[in-house]
Amino acid sequence: MSFTIQNALIPVDRGYETADVQVADNCISAIAQNHPPLNSPPYQREDRGGGTIIDGKNKLLLPGFVNAHTHSSEMWQRGIIPPLPLELWLAELYDFTPLDPEQVYLSALGTAVETLLSGGTSVVDHLVLIPGQELETIAAAVRAYQEIGIRAFIGPLIQDESLTAGMPAGDGAMEHAAYIRSTKATLELMEAAIKQFHNPEKGVNILLAPTGIQLCSDALFEGCIDLGDRYNLCLHAHLLETSAQKQLAHEKYGCSAVEHLQKIGFLTPRTSLAHCVWLEDSDIAILAETKSTVVHNPLSNLRLGSGIAPILKYRQAGVNVSFGCDGAASNDSQDLLEAIKMGSILHNITDLDYRHWITPRESVEMASLGGAKGLNLADEMGSLTVGKKADFVLYDLTSLSLLPRTDPIGLLILGRPTNAVDSVWVNGKQIVAEGKVKTIDVDDLRRQLFDRSEWSSQRQSPMVGEIEAHYRQVMKLSLGG
Amino acid sequence: MSFTIQNALIPVDRGYETADVQVADNCISAIAQNHPPLNSPPYQREDRGGGTIIDGKNKLLLPGFVNAHTHSSEMWQRGIIPPLPLELWLAELYDFTPLDPEQVYLSALGTAVETLLSGGTSVVDHLVLIPGQELETIAAAVRAYQEIGIRAFIGPLIQDESLTAGMPAGDGAMEHAAYIRSTKATLELMEAAIKQFHNPEKGVNILLAPTGIQLCSDALFEGCIDLGDRYNLCLHAHLLETSAQKQLAHEKYGCSAVEHLQKIGFLTPRTSLAHCVWLEDSDIAILAETKSTVVHNPLSNLRLGSGIAPILKYRQAGVNVSFGCDGAASNDSQDLLEAIKMGSILHNITDLDYRHWITPRESVEMASLGGAKGLNLADEMGSLTVGKKADFVLYDLTSLSLLPRTDPIGLLILGRPTNAVDSVWVNGKQIVAEGKVKTIDVDDLRRQLFDRSEWSSQRQSPMVGEIEAHYRQVMKLSLGG
Repeated sequence: MSFTIQNALIPVDRGYETADVQVADNCISAIAQNHPPLNSPPYQREDRGGGTIIDGKNKLLLPGFVNAHTHSSEMWQRGIIPPLPLELWLAELYDFTPLDPEQVYLSALGTAVETLLSGGTSVVDHLVLIPGQELETIAAAVRAYQEIGIRAFIGPLIQDESLTAGMPAGDGAMEHAAYIRSTKATLELMEAAIKQFHNPEKGVNILLAPTGIQLCSDALFEGCIDLGDRYNLCLHAHLLETSAQKQLAHEKYGCSAVEHLQKIGFLTPRTSLAHCVWLEDSDIAILAETKSTVVHNPLSNLRLGSGIAPILKYRQAGVNVSFGCDGAASNDSQDLLEAIKMGSILHNITDLDYRHWITPRESVEMASLGGAKGLNLADEMGSLTVGKKADFVLYDLTSLSLLPRTDPIGLLILGRPTNAVDSVWVNGKQIVAEGKVKTIDVDDLRRQLFDRSEWSSQRQSPMVGEIEAHYRQVMKLSLGG
Repeated sequence: MSFTIQNALIPVDRGYETADVQVADNCISAIAQNHPPLNSPPYQREDRGGGTIIDGKNKLLLPGFVNAHTHSSEMWQRGIIPPLPLELWLAELYDFTPLDPEQVYLSALGTAVETLLSGGTSVVDHLVLIPGQELETIAAAVRAYQEIGIRAFIGPLIQDESLTAGMPAGDGAMEHAAYIRSTKATLELMEAAIKQFHNPEKGVNILLAPTGIQLCSDALFEGCIDLGDRYNLCLHAHLLETSAQKQLAHEKYGCSAVEHLQKIGFLTPRTSLAHCVWLEDSDIAILAETKSTVVHNPLSNLRLGSGIAPILKYRQAGVNVSFGCDGAASNDSQDLLEAIKMGSILHNITDLDYRHWITPRESVEMASLGGAKGLNLADEMGSLTVGKKADFVLYDLTSLSLLPRTDPIGLLILGRPTNAVDSVWVNGKQIVAEGKVKTIDVDDLRRQLFDRSEWSSQRQSPMVGEIEAHYRQVMKLSLGG
């Protein structure tokens, strides 16, 4: 299957050119810049043997972005969890997490649709597993992502400590129930998942993804490192999302979480770490040294009151940074362009010197090449480069939200693009055309999501009630308040 | 003209009911709650004489929001100004501000379309005037807003000092050119504008809107107060958007800007103040005491690195707060739902106690009733109340972005609604139906915006070059860096 997108705008140096981009065998096979460039009518040209012709006129072509951290099944709870910090929010989330693989399938589809329609071609799904139906959960997500055709990186979310262990003990000792599954059984499950589902050629990749230091033993981390080494897979985890986790790490390890993860070997160029809000400068130096990637989830960090990740410091230290939406119950959307915008402009209030602020072109590079680097795939995707996978997106520059014409990338990143994604290709296959997903029936998806849910406004989470007093005490919040 | 929206979801107490909302003579004439309520098929009912029937099934009805601070003509420069702090950003903005009333007309239409399609029924346009064509500028905006049918509050942006006076002098004295128009001539112009354009019955209101302490003399403020009193009009200004302005206020007055504005009588229940980022607790007490309104513009405050306005403190002090998009060159959009979301969740990182965080229902009230209060119209609009103006919005709860069904207001405010606005009425007139603006030809607007602009990525602002060194010195930024 070969095709050529003609006369699309592409970014070059600090400007734009119109270009013809040719695809063969799922990869970019040629990029020919046209003259005359911008704001002139295109040449009439002869067929150069580039296969099907696609008109890119008045459209901007960019590499696909990576939604580098999400939890797809949270979509069932978006909009409903009240303003709470992570530790209490998680309790409510767990109390109402769906327990049906068909729901997992539908929310994976929904996550993929929103990601694709906001410029994403890859999704990293830190997938919550249904107890007792773990492989069925993964199978449901794999089925969804293969049907729709997005490039999927599934990190089954694993832990070996129960939820209450994720809060600092503070002054008092706490008892925690044993986790439902042993560390050994969890690692065996991961190996089974790798053997059954890891298939990069078919667009499905498995990551080893312990939830984070707050709920995982060293044995679990080390087992994941070992599996990652043996199967050449990437590692993924949450890291220091909240100040409570920072406090917990010191209780648990007597050093920072980053120092501990480095010591046990979890930090590698194949490791991506979601959040990274509460790192010290010495921790940042370790991320740079180990070439680990930070996945910035600005919207959930605000929604949950976690804080502002020191993204400008990461960039100055040479740490690779990409963007994620995070799960839709802490955001409460999967619009990647929104996460990129907020994850870019948010940091302007953290450094008076505007020369350090992220420019829209840098945002695009973080979202595309930064995402690819974090998945150890910078050689295969993340830029419009001959030889790389044909994962890219064509934006309609005649959308009202991208008018009047100024700087197309500035409009896309700093604006609020609406119906701006015209077409999306993943691995050379067209998934979106004229703004519509072509590979699945989105109206049917909407009907199913509608039919399986109910409007609601008042639900009570038993677990929040159980742990709130302890949380307020540890965080030094007024108990009467 | 009378009509009834049947079976729409409306918020009640902490839940929802389906209701029939009847409109007569541009106002809400009846609200009848139906039983059975949620998640049940609607009754078949007889015609109650409510005029045309509109099906509200699976839709959420909310009062219209107020886009409580914007500058419509900035739309011509959205996406193009690089990451810069306000003082330098303004210099670049002024260097390239459009000078043609037809452009003002088109960008007012564009601002109105985006506001309407994101839940707004009123817009406060702090309108930049074309020198020498001031009344023509206002006439162009009035024409646009009347054609499209949004409720318009136009505050012609006036000042009587030239741009460089807006920066603190720091250690050195600075010379500033005289402003192009005298204070007296400006006030005469405002009185002419009031006489010519202020017409609340026709949906057009004039505000007295000096740009702010950074560029206005006391004589200008006092002239505005006098006109406001004589014609019973609202007052509007920027207030302490940046730390540079805070420094300037102390240089200029020897006290805080808020203390000074109170002293000269500018702070009243008819006064709304955009930004309010750099206020002390004593200033907040003054806003509460004078019943002034804060207009929160979270996106431009981030984009320009201005800071986070202490919105939770305002709310705790009893200060009324509403939301604005601010001009599209500092945002770079006019999506009011985006401003509301960010203006709500941003503050969760400023107070550890989540019991102070803004809930989605509180956000809706701030955006609607809060906006109405800031325009001294709380008796006439801002809630679904019998007797108030029929300014409201029907959201399609079957939009993918509002599925699965959970809490409709949570989904709307915390999510990223896409194509979610189904219908909009202003003053009882339907402006938007099935997601499309009906009163103007939006495709023609797009064509005109396209034809009158060019893609561009590199432009040089002479004024930024002139003032940057002084800015860096005053803000104590490295001069080499």
